Amino acid sequence: MKYSLNSRKVAEATEQCLKERGVKKRDIAELVLFLQKDYIPGLTLEEVYGHMERVLAKREVQNAILTGIQLDVLAEQGKLMQPLQDIIYNDEPLYGCDEILALSIVNVYGSIGFTNYGYIDKKKQGVLSMLNDKNDGKIHTFLDDIVGAIAAATSSKIAHGYQAELEKKQLTESEDANNI
Amino acid sequence: MKYSLNSRKVAEATEQCLKERGVKKRDIAELVLFLQKDYIPGLTLEEVYGHMERVLAKREVQNAILTGIQLDVLAEQGKLMQPLQDIIYNDEPLYGCDEILALSIVNVYGSIGFTNYGYIDKKKQGVLSMLNDKNDGKIHTFLDDIVGAIAAATSSKIAHGYQAELEKKQLTESEDANNI
Amino acid sequence: MKYSLNSRKVAEATEQCLKERGVKKRDIAELVLFLQKDYIPGLTLEEVYGHMERVLAKREVQNAILTGIQLDVLAEQGKLMQPLQDIIYNDEPLYGCDEILALSIVNVYGSIGFTNYGYIDKKKQGVLSMLNDKNDGKIHTFLDDIVGAIAAATSSKIAHGYQAELEKKQLTESEDANNI
Amino acid sequence: MKYSLNSRKVAEATEQCLKERGVKKRDIAELVLFLQKDYIPGLTLEEVYGHMERVLAKREVQNAILTGIQLDVLAEQGKLMQPLQDIIYNDEPLYGCDEILALSIVNVYGSIGFTNYGYIDKKKQGVLSMLNDKNDGKIHTFLDDIVGAIAAATSSKIAHGYQAELEKKQLTESEDANNI
Repeated sequence: MKYSLNSRKVAEATEQCLKERGVKKRDIAELVLFLQKDYIPGLTLEEVYGHMERVLAKREVQNAILTGIQLDVLAEQGKLMQPLQDIIYNDEPLYGCDEILALSIVNVYGSIGFTNYGYIDKKKQGVLSMLNDKNDGKIHTFLDDIVGAIAAATSSKIAHGYQAELEKKQLTESEDANNI
Repeated sequence: MKYSLNSRKVAEATEQCLKERGVKKRDIAELVLFLQKDYIPGLTLEEVYGHMERVLAKREVQNAILTGIQLDVLAEQGKLMQPLQDIIYNDEPLYGCDEILALSIVNVYGSIGFTNYGYIDKKKQGVLSMLNDKNDGKIHTFLDDIVGAIAAATSSKIAHGYQAELEKKQLTESEDANNI
Repeated sequence: MKYSLNSRKVAEATEQCLKERGVKKRDIAELVLFLQKDYIPGLTLEEVYGHMERVLAKREVQNAILTGIQLDVLAEQGKLMQPLQDIIYNDEPLYGCDEILALSIVNVYGSIGFTNYGYIDKKKQGVLSMLNDKNDGKIHTFLDDIVGAIAAATSSKIAHGYQAELEKKQLTESEDANNI
Repeated sequence: MKYSLNSRKVAEATEQCLKERGVKKRDIAELVLFLQKDYIPGLTLEEVYGHMERVLAKREVQNAILTGIQLDVLAEQGKLMQPLQDIIYNDEPLYGCDEILALSIVNVYGSIGFTNYGYIDKKKQGVLSMLNDKNDGKIHTFLDDIVGAIAAATSSKIAHGYQAELEKKQLTESEDANNI
C-alpha cells in the first residue's frame, strides 16, 4: 500500500512520547508561568494550556520532539553506533544537535523566544532539573532542550496574543470615548 | 505619551513599503506558483493570495521586511556610515545579513522552506530578476532575499494546508466506504 | 572508566560513515566546483579538497553527519519507532529535521551559503541525484541534505578565502607601484 | 572606480564602532569569564582576549555588528521611517531582528552557544545592564544582543579549544606511560 501520512497519528505519538519519557504538560506549563509571570499579570495555567496546545499541534514541533526522543531512547538502550552512542549517552558538551532541534521548535513563534530558551535551559528550572539528573539511568540529552524550547515557544505565542488583546482593549476604550 | 505599538500600522506600513519599492503581490504570488505548480495540481493565484496574506500578517515577517527595506533605502540615499554604505550599496558577496533576515521569514513556516528559498534566489526567477538589476540606480540588496523568502514561506504554508486537505478527503472517502 | 571524548575517533567515524553510505569526497568536491566555477576562475579539485577538509574537521559538522546518517541507517533497517519510521523511510515532505541539521552545517561558514544549499538540493545536482533515487532500497533522507550542506559550506569558505587573496594581491601591486 | 572590498577597513570600523558605543573589549571578556569560570578552571582575561580577537575577525560577526549598531544610531537620531523608528527606539518586545542578527554571531562557533547567549541576555549581566538602561537617551536595542552574542561565541570557541588541549595532554601522558 502506498505510504500516506496520518497527521492525527503523528500528533498522538508526540503526546504519548512526552508522557512516557516522564514529562507532564503541567511541567511545561509551569516553566511558561515562570517565564511570563512578570510580563503578563494574572496569567493562569488554563490560559497557558490553551496556547501550549497550539504549539504542540505544529508539525515542525512534533517532528523535532519525535526525532529527539527517539535518539534519547536509542542511546539509553545502547543501540546507537559509536562514537555517537557515547556522545549522546554522556550529553557531550561539544555536541549541539540537541540545541539545533530545540531551536527549530522555538523558531515556530519567532526569534523573541531565543533568550527565554537559553535562560531556562541554563537555570535548569523546574522539570528541567529532573531531566538533567545524570544518576537515574535515563538519557534526556535531547528532551531537556526540547521541553525548554516548547516552553519558550509557548511564551512567545502568549506575548503575541497579549499584545493583540491590549490593542483590542485600547481600541474599544477609544471608541467608547468617541461615543460620549 | 507612553509608546504603544499599533499592530495595524505595522501591517499597513509593510504593505506600503513593498509597493513603493516596486513589488506587487502578484509578483510574489507568481513565484509561489512557479515553486508549487508541480506539487499542487490546479493551484490558483486566488488560493496563493489567501495563504500569502497569512504569511504577511505575521509580525516576525513584517519586522524583517521593514528593517530590510529601510537599509536598502538608506543605502540608495547614501546615508549609511562607511564601510556599511559601500557593502550594502554594492550587494557585497560576503555580506550575509540579508540572507539572515530572509531566513527569519522562511522559518515562520518551518525548515521545509529553506531549499525553496535558496532555489529561487539563485535562479533569479520572475520579479527577482528585476530586483537584481544592478543598473537602474535602485538598491535591493535586502529586498530580493525578502521577496524570495515570502514566496518560500507561502509555499510551505500551502504544502501544510494541502496535506491537511488530502487527509480530510481520505477520511471522508473511508467513511463513505464504511457506510456502504 | 570515566567517559572522555576522543576527537580523532569522531573525525575518523565521520569519514568512514560517508564512505560506507556511498559518498566519495570527489562527489562533494564536484558539487563545489559546479557552484563556484562561475565565480572563481581556474578553481581546481585540489584546492576544493583543501577547503573541504577544513569544513569536515569542524566538530559541529561531524555531529550533524553522524546523527543524520544514524537516522538514515536505522530507518533503512526498520528500527525506528512509528510513525517516525514511516516518515523518515518515505522522506515525508513535511518532515524538516533533515533540513535543520543541514543548516547547522551551512552555518559554520555563515549565511552566504544558504542559497547555494537550497539551489543544489532542488536541482538534485551530481551525486544528489543518486542519493534521491527512491528505488534502490537505500534511505538517504538526511544524507542528501547533508552532502549539499557540506558543498555549500565549502563554497562559502572558498569565497572568503578568494576575497582574502584578491586583497593581498591588490596590496602587493599597490606596494610595487609605490616602489617605482 | 570599481568597488572593491577592503577587509582591513571593515575590521577597523567594527572595532571603532564598538568603542564609540561605549563597549570596551574588557566588558565583553568579563562576560565570557562569567560564563566559563565554572567549566575552565584558571581561565584568564588574557586567554579570553586571544579567543575573542578570533571571533571579532570573522566577517560574519563584523557584518552583524556594523548593521546592528547602524540601526541603533539611526534610531537614536530619529532618522528611521515610521513605525520602525518607534519600534527600535522603544526596544519593542515583539521585534526580534536584534535576536536574529545576534544569532548569526553565535552560530559562527556552533549551536552550543545558544543557551549561553540566552542566559546572559536575560540576566543583564555586567555591561549588559548598562546597555539596557532605558533612561540615558542612548538606544542599544541591537547592541545589547550583539555583545551577549560575541561573549557566547567566544565561550564556544574556548570550550572547543579546551577540549583539544585536554586530549593533547591525555595523549602525551599515555605516551609517557608507554615509554616507561
